[in-house]
Amino acid sequence: MELIQSNRCFNGEQRIYKINSKSLTGESKFGIYLPKKALNGEACPAVFFLAGLTCTEETFAIKAHAQQLAAQLNLILITPDTSPRGENVEQGDHWDIGQGAGFYINAMQAPWSEHFQMETFVADELYSLVNQEFLIEQNRIGIFGHSMGGHGALTLALKYPEKFKSVSAFAAICAPSQCPWGEKAFSNYLGENKTEWLKHDATALVEEKGALFTDILIDQGLKDQFYSQLNPALFEQSCKRAGQKLTLREHEGYDHGYYFIQSFIEDHLKFHHAQLHA
Amino acid sequence: MELIQSNRCFNGEQRIYKINSKSLTGESKFGIYLPKKALNGEACPAVFFLAGLTCTEETFAIKAHAQQLAAQLNLILITPDTSPRGENVEQGDHWDIGQGAGFYINAMQAPWSEHFQMETFVADELYSLVNQEFLIEQNRIGIFGHSMGGHGALTLALKYPEKFKSVSAFAAICAPSQCPWGEKAFSNYLGENKTEWLKHDATALVEEKGALFTDILIDQGLKDQFYSQLNPALFEQSCKRAGQKLTLREHEGYDHGYYFIQSFIEDHLKFHHAQLHA
Repeated sequence: MELIQSNRCFNGEQRIYKINSKSLTGESKFGIYLPKKALNGEACPAVFFLAGLTCTEETFAIKAHAQQLAAQLNLILITPDTSPRGENVEQGDHWDIGQGAGFYINAMQAPWSEHFQMETFVADELYSLVNQEFLIEQNRIGIFGHSMGGHGALTLALKYPEKFKSVSAFAAICAPSQCPWGEKAFSNYLGENKTEWLKHDATALVEEKGALFTDILIDQGLKDQFYSQLNPALFEQSCKRAGQKLTLREHEGYDHGYYFIQSFIEDHLKFHHAQLHA
Repeated sequence: MELIQSNRCFNGEQRIYKINSKSLTGESKFGIYLPKKALNGEACPAVFFLAGLTCTEETFAIKAHAQQLAAQLNLILITPDTSPRGENVEQGDHWDIGQGAGFYINAMQAPWSEHFQMETFVADELYSLVNQEFLIEQNRIGIFGHSMGGHGALTLALKYPEKFKSVSAFAAICAPSQCPWGEKAFSNYLGENKTEWLKHDATALVEEKGALFTDILIDQGLKDQFYSQLNPALFEQSCKRAGQKLTLREHEGYDHGYYFIQSFIEDHLKFHHAQLHA
């Protein structure tokens, strides 16, 4: 683990590390915000944030405006990159596939399967690494994300509830099996067997898993330019059928971007803080 | 004035406009944050933010994390670009000169003088335009900035105290006549006559103008990688000689970037709010 950037921020440190990832078969970077309490060697709760298409490990740190409240709440924020990267990694034909578009799943077929193992990377390799390298409070780790990363957060939380105790999302791709972004990614990474797809589809998963969380928070802008990709209503119906409480908030006038995220980021951090201390 | 981007943000709007600038002889863009009160047609105070080298009209909006408190304080935030832009505009041999490096002065010699008229652009043309197009409270306009834009804010406030009622800066180039960035910019834009330079040097200007403001706030990181370009101590001495109150705060561990700015942005907005309502 090599520290490649560190900036003092609200008396804590916003950092970027480079690692050699076994699961991604190559280098990867991740960001981490360490509040002052963590720098002082005291254990803190942590929340993973999974970013959306085209983003990197630093997008959230620059654009989401989370550090101020994270500093107050003593929350560690962990931000993986959105895919494997590098010259040897498939670029993809568009920004919705390949580099910057890993979809937080493990690819099952060529040319993707060699590097695109983002589920194992986030939920296993990076999860273990940060728990080993930083003082993180046991049983106080949450996960949230945006768009493709909202899909990632919901599905990883539903798959690994023993690892992630709280989950929320902004403008999540809630039913990837039923939207163009998800169909393209899943057919490339997983193949054409749609039974396989449903294992990585939050709307299908929540019905299978049942009520795992006290609450799930999703914020959605009603002027979101990608609204047709997101399907929050399908997820809401599945949660209802599964008995999973969902707080789905729809916001007049807000779009898909980080100006929307920054407007509601504090509610998400407070939500995780409350869930992790319940 | 053409609206080219608008994003809902904390119940207000973060916008970018494109204009044909007379003073820059070409197109220019500026950002503006309008809190909800302004959208509702009520007059609000406004603060100009001048960004540093390489930045654009959107850097502050993305990275400074100012909108949340601006929404609470009903402050309009106005962010010009850092230079003229375009194919017909001199690019410069490095990022410290030419496009992205206008230094908020009027160039006096070729090849710069045709477009690089940033002082007139900000203090006259854009100032008039925003006062005409938006409901801004009379006598409640402040200015602040970062690095090159800190130099811009200090000098424009000292030159036009009737226009700017409050002034602050992050990591300002406080004595451009005495640092490499300033020497390069001033010799290019103004020529070799150093008497001319002093008209655009905050450390010289404050001595000439005397005490114009109740207080000036400057935040400076002590791990700033460009510390030798900034000379806050020279400005402090000049303020002392001029009887101008200066609150210069030096912060252990903070560097030159926006993670530093976001850590103290609220203090600056509160400072302007207080000064503009005194």
